[in-house]
Amino acid sequence: MLDAMKVLSLTDVDARVRQALAEDIGSGDVTTLATVPSDWTASAIMVAREPLVLAGLLFAERAFQIISPEITMDAGAADGQDCPKNTVLLRVSGNAQSILTAERVALNFVQRLSGVATATRRFVEQVAGTHAKILDTRKTTPGWRVFEKYAVRCGGGSNHRIGLYDMVLIKDNHLTALQNERPNAIEAAVRRARAQFPALKVEVEADTLEQVEQALHAGADMILLDNMALMEMTRAVQIVGGRAKTEASGGINLANVRTIAETGVDFISVGAITHSARAVDIALDFQ
Amino acid sequence: MLDAMKVLSLTDVDARVRQALAEDIGSGDVTTLATVPSDWTASAIMVAREPLVLAGLLFAERAFQIISPEITMDAGAADGQDCPKNTVLLRVSGNAQSILTAERVALNFVQRLSGVATATRRFVEQVAGTHAKILDTRKTTPGWRVFEKYAVRCGGGSNHRIGLYDMVLIKDNHLTALQNERPNAIEAAVRRARAQFPALKVEVEADTLEQVEQALHAGADMILLDNMALMEMTRAVQIVGGRAKTEASGGINLANVRTIAETGVDFISVGAITHSARAVDIALDFQ
Amino acid sequence: MLDAMKVLSLTDVDARVRQALAEDIGSGDVTTLATVPSDWTASAIMVAREPLVLAGLLFAERAFQIISPEITMDAGAADGQDCPKNTVLLRVSGNAQSILTAERVALNFVQRLSGVATATRRFVEQVAGTHAKILDTRKTTPGWRVFEKYAVRCGGGSNHRIGLYDMVLIKDNHLTALQNERPNAIEAAVRRARAQFPALKVEVEADTLEQVEQALHAGADMILLDNMALMEMTRAVQIVGGRAKTEASGGINLANVRTIAETGVDFISVGAITHSARAVDIALDFQ
Amino acid sequence: MLDAMKVLSLTDVDARVRQALAEDIGSGDVTTLATVPSDWTASAIMVAREPLVLAGLLFAERAFQIISPEITMDAGAADGQDCPKNTVLLRVSGNAQSILTAERVALNFVQRLSGVATATRRFVEQVAGTHAKILDTRKTTPGWRVFEKYAVRCGGGSNHRIGLYDMVLIKDNHLTALQNERPNAIEAAVRRARAQFPALKVEVEADTLEQVEQALHAGADMILLDNMALMEMTRAVQIVGGRAKTEASGGINLANVRTIAETGVDFISVGAITHSARAVDIALDFQ
Amino acid sequence: MLDAMKVLSLTDVDARVRQALAEDIGSGDVTTLATVPSDWTASAIMVAREPLVLAGLLFAERAFQIISPEITMDAGAADGQDCPKNTVLLRVSGNAQSILTAERVALNFVQRLSGVATATRRFVEQVAGTHAKILDTRKTTPGWRVFEKYAVRCGGGSNHRIGLYDMVLIKDNHLTALQNERPNAIEAAVRRARAQFPALKVEVEADTLEQVEQALHAGADMILLDNMALMEMTRAVQIVGGRAKTEASGGINLANVRTIAETGVDFISVGAITHSARAVDIALDFQ
Amino acid sequence: MLDAMKVLSLTDVDARVRQALAEDIGSGDVTTLATVPSDWTASAIMVAREPLVLAGLLFAERAFQIISPEITMDAGAADGQDCPKNTVLLRVSGNAQSILTAERVALNFVQRLSGVATATRRFVEQVAGTHAKILDTRKTTPGWRVFEKYAVRCGGGSNHRIGLYDMVLIKDNHLTALQNERPNAIEAAVRRARAQFPALKVEVEADTLEQVEQALHAGADMILLDNMALMEMTRAVQIVGGRAKTEASGGINLANVRTIAETGVDFISVGAITHSARAVDIALDFQ
Repeated sequence: MLDAMKVLSLTDVDARVRQALAEDIGSGDVTTLATVPSDWTASAIMVAREPLVLAGLLFAERAFQIISPEITMDAGAADGQDCPKNTVLLRVSGNAQSILTAERVALNFVQRLSGVATATRRFVEQVAGTHAKILDTRKTTPGWRVFEKYAVRCGGGSNHRIGLYDMVLIKDNHLTALQNERPNAIEAAVRRARAQFPALKVEVEADTLEQVEQALHAGADMILLDNMALMEMTRAVQIVGGRAKTEASGGINLANVRTIAETGVDFISVGAITHSARAVDIALDFQ
Repeated sequence: MLDAMKVLSLTDVDARVRQALAEDIGSGDVTTLATVPSDWTASAIMVAREPLVLAGLLFAERAFQIISPEITMDAGAADGQDCPKNTVLLRVSGNAQSILTAERVALNFVQRLSGVATATRRFVEQVAGTHAKILDTRKTTPGWRVFEKYAVRCGGGSNHRIGLYDMVLIKDNHLTALQNERPNAIEAAVRRARAQFPALKVEVEADTLEQVEQALHAGADMILLDNMALMEMTRAVQIVGGRAKTEASGGINLANVRTIAETGVDFISVGAITHSARAVDIALDFQ
Repeated sequence: MLDAMKVLSLTDVDARVRQALAEDIGSGDVTTLATVPSDWTASAIMVAREPLVLAGLLFAERAFQIISPEITMDAGAADGQDCPKNTVLLRVSGNAQSILTAERVALNFVQRLSGVATATRRFVEQVAGTHAKILDTRKTTPGWRVFEKYAVRCGGGSNHRIGLYDMVLIKDNHLTALQNERPNAIEAAVRRARAQFPALKVEVEADTLEQVEQALHAGADMILLDNMALMEMTRAVQIVGGRAKTEASGGINLANVRTIAETGVDFISVGAITHSARAVDIALDFQ
Repeated sequence: MLDAMKVLSLTDVDARVRQALAEDIGSGDVTTLATVPSDWTASAIMVAREPLVLAGLLFAERAFQIISPEITMDAGAADGQDCPKNTVLLRVSGNAQSILTAERVALNFVQRLSGVATATRRFVEQVAGTHAKILDTRKTTPGWRVFEKYAVRCGGGSNHRIGLYDMVLIKDNHLTALQNERPNAIEAAVRRARAQFPALKVEVEADTLEQVEQALHAGADMILLDNMALMEMTRAVQIVGGRAKTEASGGINLANVRTIAETGVDFISVGAITHSARAVDIALDFQ
Repeated sequence: MLDAMKVLSLTDVDARVRQALAEDIGSGDVTTLATVPSDWTASAIMVAREPLVLAGLLFAERAFQIISPEITMDAGAADGQDCPKNTVLLRVSGNAQSILTAERVALNFVQRLSGVATATRRFVEQVAGTHAKILDTRKTTPGWRVFEKYAVRCGGGSNHRIGLYDMVLIKDNHLTALQNERPNAIEAAVRRARAQFPALKVEVEADTLEQVEQALHAGADMILLDNMALMEMTRAVQIVGGRAKTEASGGINLANVRTIAETGVDFISVGAITHSARAVDIALDFQ
Repeated sequence: MLDAMKVLSLTDVDARVRQALAEDIGSGDVTTLATVPSDWTASAIMVAREPLVLAGLLFAERAFQIISPEITMDAGAADGQDCPKNTVLLRVSGNAQSILTAERVALNFVQRLSGVATATRRFVEQVAGTHAKILDTRKTTPGWRVFEKYAVRCGGGSNHRIGLYDMVLIKDNHLTALQNERPNAIEAAVRRARAQFPALKVEVEADTLEQVEQALHAGADMILLDNMALMEMTRAVQIVGGRAKTEASGGINLANVRTIAETGVDFISVGAITHSARAVDIALDFQ
């Protein structure tokens, strides 16, 4: 079972929730202050209005607790869980003003992160039974990388490198720099990367089978098959023959992801699960 | 013409860009460091790979300049502009390592904010010629409200309240609190809001025509017609007769927005333009 | 009753208190460390040394609790309450070192915010029985706007716009820009503001009765009667005749505020209640 | 001449100005954006509307420059300078939108800090020709200590300790802790302070002449004569006879400060110059 | 007994621990997440692997508690205590994943600060029985000054000035500026310092006996004997004769510190106790 | 050649330098303000007082520039360069007050980071000609990881994982958790890690040859030979036979590192190069 408390440092979650509350509340929730008695209590349930994979429930819990530490909560589902429509995700009880004031911030976090998890799950389901794993990319909301990569894991996906620093990934633009100097730019690039960063994995982008062979010969740990036609990709996987990991990328969607997985690639990376995930519909119903 | 420098306080833009760069670069862009000579220069163009409305170009410019103040740039389009496919949005020239290192962060900001602007523009175009204006909501990415509301304006939309503090918006949950006390909860709520926050606009959510009448009688500045059927909404607009502003919300999409606009409402608020905007496709091509 | 916990986001209060404690304590309260045994306990009362309106007690409570979570406290008054001289505002009990170390920071916050509330109350009392409400301005201590606006509410005043973003307020310098272009700058300015920011209130500054008429004709929601003579102001209120709200500003003091209120204006804005409020005298007496 | 650039770390000034700009501008200066063409330029002068001692001009300069780096400025006075009514403090030229948007933040800083400097100067002038120096206290706006202490220096005052950490100041509450243990609490306290913090100055609060003798005997560097009657204070100064520095405090105002100075005390500390300084009247006039 | 809670503002400690945890954990402790069941509990002891003086245990406690508030702890030693090899410093019990994830951060803080305390204690022991006290310098890890100065106190050392602002220390480079102007630069410098900062202690660096006499004559509170030969230093102490405090600095090490102390100087400042302290060996042993 | 501008994000460097300057300068460099005329200029050189490997010169440059943007500088050496005693590292010219005020902060950064680089270089030199590379660990100054890892690279060392998140490293405590469940804990641990984090490298700590075989069989990418005797380590390297990378750790020092390297291990990790590096001696000499 996923454990948000361990994965998402409590620190940062709180900092984000506080920032979001400050952004929304400013000098006060004027409507609630004017209309709801300060000693009223209320109960509410956070409900899935559509099927979804939950991610980021901790953010909602912290939003309510930061506004009012006395609010009691009871989680009805856990991050990573497949929730049918109408699933109760969280029960909240306590000061009515506080619940109303924190409501939108709590929902905004969970709707967005669950959106990422749900989009990921759809891709993961499509490749079920194949060898391929779904990876995320660096195409994340600026400042949210850790959170979105956590949501991808909630959806059953795996994480590609976190940033520019924890893995070498040689792309065509890097090769351009070396192309003028040497007959085989890929080999030169891998050699340089190994020398400077011996402890890191090295991946090489290959657009052609010739480049696949060069990457393999250069000793790449992983080869990125970028925008390859299906036949070519199948051939590339055969050439590699398990001597390196293979990753497909470029123009992946729900319609074509299974066919791509069936080429035998190890990984399929999908930018859309983070950069274009639709927020899922979640509501807070008062009772 | 929109002027990002005035609207987006330079301060905050820089803080966000620096955070995003730190998040991505960490201990260094190992690939670029290992493969690209530190004295190489390069030129690149940021190109729209699909038609889009530009928003947030300043973020990209700052990303490149923060990494390398010597980089020169030339904007090919301005925020708010309709850009056909293949429009050159920005020309960048300078140290090759720096451009490669800043590339993804620069793109992540512009793709996301332009996504919001583009989604907004699609709705604005649908209601062209009617009286209705497209509004955003508080369903924004936590921590990004100001930026996404700016992007909505780039798309031709208008901004609803910024947060809970700058306008009173009385919803059913607020009324629940007062329902037990008085015969007419709406009137009680508006009266209280006026007393406590005399300088603020007051909007009331109405689910029925009866509530519309009550809101009107209570002197609301604006009435939110939430999830009303078309006929009922048309009738509501007639009842109001210009004595307050009317806003339609709930389940708005590109297919139904024009019909809703034709009921005569003043505003139509759409959560999806911020919470579910797809990132537009923008690439950085080296030359 | 005012509820600081809801109005002042707990987050920001804590951040300010921590910053102030760090600023004061630095590498340690050397005097207390050297002279007071670490296991001593003490009780102290925070007492009003002069009549005052309390504001910001939460800041004092947090200062003590952040230094020593075991300190117990008992509030003797609530924010917004009129406290005669010698009122016990807070009883504090616990570790003697901690109470001594937090004392000055706790007092500095409450003395200043209560100073704002008390200054406001004096103005509010002066206009009692008239129609006019006392408003604050944007002349606040930089970085303290939300807190000082909260203190103004504690004093019985109402808040004008929070910043430059939540309301349009067209002043003479804005009109200058348009004066050269058109016969009627006010109408042009209001029309532009309505077009760009349809959801916001529009206020227009008027220095003459002619401008009052223009503002009214342009459909301003509120008219700022700036530095007008009493007779002119009375006439202005008559001209407006309830079709817009009126606000008096400029040179307001305790001596003249009631006369101004009696002109029938809706609002009177007073910069001095925030920018020149005297700190009220509050002491922490050990027992 | 005072040099703000050296005293106020540029860093912190910018951080404060940015925070204040963000607080005021939020999602944009809607009035200026709607009414002033983005390519207009303007000139304005910041003028003293009453006689004042200038402090914090750097804050105003940074406010304009942060909003628009192209704005040119010309200082008409320097921090610490006595400025008669109508003195031009700063000339500003550049983009009209930017000047209008930064105006209030620029003024808020300078009006407040110059208020502190001016209040200080009034006290300094009162004691001119005597031996006494005016000191500030720790009764400063939370978070502003360094800035207000800088303003006190601009006014001709001297700074007491910065916080709880850079000097030992033994007050009655500290002595209470030791009173039960020993015959002479003051001597015990000074001895302990010397032992633990040998590099720090030690000051002792004395309410009676007996305590003055004890403090002197204990070897205090400085003795605080708190709320003493004039005759008693004169006697205390004689007793001390230059063997320690003396500081008068408690109930000091412009009417009594000179008489107190004439007792021969070395220092007079005045809380009001920071906690209750009135903002001076400064305006930005467009030309 | 030292009380870290009072000296180290809880605020800042938490901020540092959170920053360090975020730095280390990033997107999750992948090893622990993959191998340790989330419901396992464990007990561990933090043990001194070599003799040491403890400092900063609070940082370790906070690291565990921030990751998992339910972890229980039992301190086996207190800051400032001499701990023989194998001393149990802290017992930790609770969720196994949490303990493993926080382990390194907890150790890094305590090993470093105890390293400073231990290095200090070695110097303090060397001068035991003499009059001299060991002082720290401003040669601290940037951003850690308060913490390292606290550790110095744990080791039995005393703190020199905190920064450039709380004491005047006139060195040769300052004198250079005045040398061209006047016959006696030291006297000019002290006079200026007294005039501008009357409440601060003034120390003067002296490289020769002539300068010692000048400093004494100028009324310096403290004289820094920089890199003086032993005989010269002894003579300097005699010349000063208690009329000012004396401080030895430059090239101090464990071998020569006692001989220097025996010259009779009041203080000996040692940069190495902060800038070059070796981390002491502490381990977390699971049971 | 190393390029600090690319590796150390300018952002973070500036933030650290500003924090350090604020920490040191506080309310002003009182000595410099009192003694050095504000219009004096000076030139100074930063000189190596002992042989060293330079690292972090950018921090010094930024310290001077932040205090006074007009200061001109000329680097005499570059990060990563071996500098004999008396090498001029930086020439600084400009306002004398500014140079004096920034001096200590500038030196503190460069002395510490160059200390790390120099310690690293000594180890790297010892293993010259062997196959082994020197790695750092996670035993870094909290909050400084990226900077110290950069300094290690300046010294010729290589970086191990950045934190807990970018590589799996299974240690004995992790295995304990699995030992009770299965016959072969190592294999179970590696399998779980591969399943959850397929894109990450997996390293296994082995204390015995049997564990080496198990790790190899489990498919570990890297095997940590912890505190092994030399003969056992040699045998371990033979057993592995290039099928995984090997890393020696535990009790490494300059005296034994070469012998360890000669066992044929791929990597040797040394905690002391970060946690116990001595600051190198660098001075700023005025001219």
